[in-house]
Amino acid sequence: MSPTTASSSSSHEQSAARTSSGDGGRSAVTVLGLGPMGRALAGAFLDAGIRTTVWNRTPGKDQELVARGATSAASPEEAVAAAELTVVCVVDYDAVDAVLRREAVTDALKGRTVVNLTADTPARARDAADWADRHGIRYLDGAIMTPTPTIGTPDAVFLHSGPYELYERQLPVLKALGGTHTHLGAEIGRAAAHDIALLDIFWTAAAGYAHALAMARAEGIAARELAPFAKGIATILPPLFEEWAGDMDDGTFSGRLNPLTSGASSMAHIVHTSEEHGIDAGVMRAVEGWARRTVGLGHGTDGFIRVAEVLGRH
Amino acid sequence: MSPTTASSSSSHEQSAARTSSGDGGRSAVTVLGLGPMGRALAGAFLDAGIRTTVWNRTPGKDQELVARGATSAASPEEAVAAAELTVVCVVDYDAVDAVLRREAVTDALKGRTVVNLTADTPARARDAADWADRHGIRYLDGAIMTPTPTIGTPDAVFLHSGPYELYERQLPVLKALGGTHTHLGAEIGRAAAHDIALLDIFWTAAAGYAHALAMARAEGIAARELAPFAKGIATILPPLFEEWAGDMDDGTFSGRLNPLTSGASSMAHIVHTSEEHGIDAGVMRAVEGWARRTVGLGHGTDGFIRVAEVLGRH
Ligand SMILES: NC(=O)c1ccc[n+]([C@@H]2O[C@H](COP(=O)([O-])OP(=O)(O)OC[C@H]3O[C@@H](n4cnc5c(N)ncnc54)[C@H](OP(=O)(O)O)[C@@H]3O)[C@@H](O)[C@H]2O)c1
Ligand SMILES: NC(=O)c1ccc[n+]([C@@H]2O[C@H](COP(=O)([O-])OP(=O)(O)OC[C@H]3O[C@@H](n4cnc5c(N)ncnc54)[C@H](OP(=O)(O)O)[C@@H]3O)[C@@H](O)[C@H]2O)c1
Repeated sequence: MSPTTASSSSSHEQSAARTSSGDGGRSAVTVLGLGPMGRALAGAFLDAGIRTTVWNRTPGKDQELVARGATSAASPEEAVAAAELTVVCVVDYDAVDAVLRREAVTDALKGRTVVNLTADTPARARDAADWADRHGIRYLDGAIMTPTPTIGTPDAVFLHSGPYELYERQLPVLKALGGTHTHLGAEIGRAAAHDIALLDIFWTAAAGYAHALAMARAEGIAARELAPFAKGIATILPPLFEEWAGDMDDGTFSGRLNPLTSGASSMAHIVHTSEEHGIDAGVMRAVEGWARRTVGLGHGTDGFIRVAEVLGRH
Repeated sequence: MSPTTASSSSSHEQSAARTSSGDGGRSAVTVLGLGPMGRALAGAFLDAGIRTTVWNRTPGKDQELVARGATSAASPEEAVAAAELTVVCVVDYDAVDAVLRREAVTDALKGRTVVNLTADTPARARDAADWADRHGIRYLDGAIMTPTPTIGTPDAVFLHSGPYELYERQLPVLKALGGTHTHLGAEIGRAAAHDIALLDIFWTAAAGYAHALAMARAEGIAARELAPFAKGIATILPPLFEEWAGDMDDGTFSGRLNPLTSGASSMAHIVHTSEEHGIDAGVMRAVEGWARRTVGLGHGTDGFIRVAEVLGRH
């Protein structure tokens, strides 16, 4: 099934969110979890005029939201009873389970809808959907791909998976969160699978930058000196990502312009320079290992992305 | 010393390159090394009307260039004797040394200029400059930060270090390569130090993408399905790079919006999902190790880039 994308940058659509769920002209939502992201979500619901009930394990994190009009619930069961839709956003699914899988909360959720915007693995998303199904709870799994300051703005990116009708029914309220919402399919693990793959790119790139800043400092280069060039490197990634995706799907791995052997040589230079400065090079050692293994399998004249195909072999 | 940047997108400046070295109105350059990058450099010199002599260890790679007007030299000593300026671009400095540090070549270079656009470590650049100095050879070290198709276009990015007067003298010819040229300072290792740090970012990010594509495939997601979202991830990096550079230089590491503990939890999900699919997670295991070590040192509520400061501690 091909993904369906909705964007909510117009205030016309946002005001639609206020009236579409039919509870006397005003939608309602409960937000469980008030870390930085949960607070941003609740704030965006409030900004859209949606009646918002909030709860967090550790008390006191709701003060600013209450001042802006949110209702503070004394317990998660009280919180979920206050709205047809509960949005959960805590650190991981162990935390989700600790909150939702207590009898009082599970009972209160019966017949209602949970949209779980917590990040975790596809396997955990499937397990959560099974649990919801067993208890008569409607369940959508989602992932937030952008940082907190984007929430409520056109820059936010949300991925969803689960029953399409359920997604469609909740979309008017979800649009209050801004940005684009994409339904990736009915298979509940799909949003988490995308999330994991995209976080993989994000955190690996972030680690590369952290390591580069450490090396630059050791070479007497300030972070602000390196940053403009680092931004230049980031801008060459999107077209390469697109090109490499084609190579991966088509099984073509031409290294005509930049053979893997050349890349492996650069990786070795990075490892040496890092270790000469006493800076741990564990990440680049692992990257070089993938490249060398791929060269060793006879793919030295291929492009770098052959590594992805080799990694996936069993 | 603050960097000096020159760009060469106007044809006016490019035509200046043709007349500035005073050899009867036409500049001359020698290119040693005809891999993908050496061929792109030689091609750009030819396009700018510069008399170009080429040599490569393995014969036959110069055919297309000769058809476009390049002169093919039978040996590197013959090649370097043909022009005041020699540009070297081979796989690494072992290869540079194999070509330049033979008596006939070193003798022929005496009094001439080498611009070394080969990538390697700052230590190797310093060693090459020492060697050049001992043999009366003028030496500039450079790094090319963009792929071959950018050469000769405004998108190319070149970094240089070494004596400023020498850089200034060669700039008119170098501008034939297009893009922007930045002189980073007289210290000869500076271009390589930037290069290493920037390649660190590039190859680490590339490895993250390769691993993400392998995981996506295992989850039934085609590379072309993931690519648009992956491009979205890449576009959030430049502003984060800038923000994190400020944090690093100022020693402020606020994790108010996204604490390191939350990132470490995502990294663990990536490792688990990868290994559940039998896909090596060595890179992300190393990234998670950096994050856990930083949390263990008491920085769990800091932002991710605290990792860079911890990596650099001795
Ligand atoms: N921040 C971002 O920029 C961002 C971006 C995209 C996605 N996300 C995702 O959004 C989710 C929330 O992230 P966050 O930034 O708000 O911070 P976080 O540190 O990942 O999560 C903090 C929240 O989790 C709760 N929590 C942790 N363990 C719990 C438990 N055992 N029982 C109940 N609650 C528990 C915390 O409650 P206490 O206050 O009681 O500790 C707090 O509400 C994560 O899955 C994250 O990956 C975040
Ligand atoms: N390709 C890019 O997109 C790109 C981008 C930025 C920077 N660079 C840098 O540019 C440099 C050249 O890269 P490349 O893409 O042209 O391909 P490469 O595979 O890195 O280098 C190939 C060149 O090195 C020569 N070579 C290797 N070992 C040699 C030796 N012992 N003696 C003499 N020559 C030797 C090869 O000669 P034979 O033909 O005889 O093997 C060929 O000319 C590298 O340092 C690379 O990191 C490349």
